Amino acid sequence: MRKYKIEPISSDIREALLKKIDGKTKPVGALGVLERIALQVGMIQNTLTPELNNPHMLVYAADHGIAKEGVSAYPQEVTWQMVMNFLREGAAINVFCRQSNIQLSVVDAGVNYDFSHDHPRLIRNKIQKSTESFLHVPAMSVKHAQKSIDTSANIVRSIYEQGCNIIGFGEMGIGNTASASVLMSVMSDIPIEECVGRGTGIDTYGLKKKQKNLSSAIAKHGKPDTVLKVLSTYGGFEIAQMVGGILQAAELKMIVLIDGFISTVAFFLAQAIEPDVKDYCLFCHQSSEHAHRRLLRLLDAKPLLDLEMRLGEGTGAAVAYPIIQSAVNFLNQMASFESAQISKQK
Amino acid sequence: MRKYKIEPISSDIREALLKKIDGKTKPVGALGVLERIALQVGMIQNTLTPELNNPHMLVYAADHGIAKEGVSAYPQEVTWQMVMNFLREGAAINVFCRQSNIQLSVVDAGVNYDFSHDHPRLIRNKIQKSTESFLHVPAMSVKHAQKSIDTSANIVRSIYEQGCNIIGFGEMGIGNTASASVLMSVMSDIPIEECVGRGTGIDTYGLKKKQKNLSSAIAKHGKPDTVLKVLSTYGGFEIAQMVGGILQAAELKMIVLIDGFISTVAFFLAQAIEPDVKDYCLFCHQSSEHAHRRLLRLLDAKPLLDLEMRLGEGTGAAVAYPIIQSAVNFLNQMASFESAQISKQK
Repeated sequence: MRKYKIEPISSDIREALLKKIDGKTKPVGALGVLERIALQVGMIQNTLTPELNNPHMLVYAADHGIAKEGVSAYPQEVTWQMVMNFLREGAAINVFCRQSNIQLSVVDAGVNYDFSHDHPRLIRNKIQKSTESFLHVPAMSVKHAQKSIDTSANIVRSIYEQGCNIIGFGEMGIGNTASASVLMSVMSDIPIEECVGRGTGIDTYGLKKKQKNLSSAIAKHGKPDTVLKVLSTYGGFEIAQMVGGILQAAELKMIVLIDGFISTVAFFLAQAIEPDVKDYCLFCHQSSEHAHRRLLRLLDAKPLLDLEMRLGEGTGAAVAYPIIQSAVNFLNQMASFESAQISKQK
Repeated sequence: MRKYKIEPISSDIREALLKKIDGKTKPVGALGVLERIALQVGMIQNTLTPELNNPHMLVYAADHGIAKEGVSAYPQEVTWQMVMNFLREGAAINVFCRQSNIQLSVVDAGVNYDFSHDHPRLIRNKIQKSTESFLHVPAMSVKHAQKSIDTSANIVRSIYEQGCNIIGFGEMGIGNTASASVLMSVMSDIPIEECVGRGTGIDTYGLKKKQKNLSSAIAKHGKPDTVLKVLSTYGGFEIAQMVGGILQAAELKMIVLIDGFISTVAFFLAQAIEPDVKDYCLFCHQSSEHAHRRLLRLLDAKPLLDLEMRLGEGTGAAVAYPIIQSAVNFLNQMASFESAQISKQK
């Protein structure tokens, strides 16, 4: 795995941005979170007039050996079936990307299926057909984890070179909340019980079983001594590729949209590798997965939306995208007190 | 004031809508609040394929006699200056409406200024130049409150006749949080201290003074025995006109977007007149005015956004609008499990 050189965002422009924001025709602070987004985006781009260019959503799909152990309410073939749904424009993420003119690409990071036909939205980056079940052996080799990160970085670089400066990270993979829960627990030392949720909808019996399985996996493999080894032991190919994508996007000073629980776990791993990555990230929504709430608190991250969604696919990021547009638009388009000749606060 | 005949929304279509929502390619309930919006909008329009047509934002502006008593951080002339800013496209609400193709109109409901030039966005419906200060006398006559409601209803009807089926209610008026606080307290019997906030930004000294003034106003006038009398005693022309606008929009089965604190107080009064009005309303954002949080709880209303905004003008409704689009779009555009041939939950 190569080294990603991520610079802290520019503080040179901070004061000038705050002055511009406070000079707009509104009471100081009255646009709340929109003002904080405008500041962050301005600092990322080091400009008083930031732009959102060619927004792109990357949905990484992969299968998980752990899915065979009964941790999900859905059979494994739903992963490839949903990829087909993405390619045929039928999924929620298609609808939300179309609404906001976000380009959507689907990365086959390791789906247990041969996609025979090429498709303009499909990016082939399969490392292997599904991980192994980490109940028994490490999910993937360290080499495969490295390869996941670096090849995914290449995908992001290519999107950047086409003029994109804001990118979202979504995922699809039956069983991937199980992997994400273990990654969160092992990296944070928060007990696994607090990191496990119902995923896309298992019942109480299933939840108990999922907790028990994940506990015994952690008992078996413990906490490896590097992030890369943690990722290879418990990760998924889509999660590993999201880590690489996030690192590359931040290195290129792109705005990074973090989606739900799994996307946030990928961010958590990326941050453990390069702490300054956070400067480039916007946390788009609070999923109804309670472990996500816990993780966002740990990361001191305040999500833009809390709409009780729990779908993944990048849907939270896509639904939040217009809010980021609103932040950039008010900064660029609103009149100032001076230009509008409006009396200031007494 | 005429009688507004507001029908409860159609429950005939409810089961069919739920079936359609649950058949989409996602786990049941996974789109959270978006699913509830889709259901409500479908029931309002009594269809499985709802549409959002010609969205419109009405910003009502008026001045308040109470503003002379030092309840605001801004001088009264800011009301007309901001109206000019709306007409010149420089305000936050202009930016957010433009972003989402929402048509914006500004209603002069009672601004203390003569707008000499006509403007396509300006709707002249001035009842009087400012209310009286309710510290001393009722803010307006009952006749003027009635006139406010019915003439504003005519404005909404005319917008409806141009093909609009979704309408937002925003406001501008220096001093109007003071009026809204008293209206909330008198209508809800919640002590005035819990209904008063810092408005657009008064300091602690100013807050104490505001509370004291409003307390003595309530001590003087008490709780009149009809909603109309409460409104005439403590209201503003923009608040009274919002009440009429909301009632008329619901009567016409339009989707009604409620903005922040003052807009919610107008809703509260409209609901006291016609309880079924709530079926047509979406509560768009939680403002950082703590009284707004209290009022939404009382109304059992869960706002779509909580972005710490406190600007009014309809900005919360305009920023939330894309979320409502997302809800309607997923209902109309997503594939079903059957059409996409995807395996269902085990």
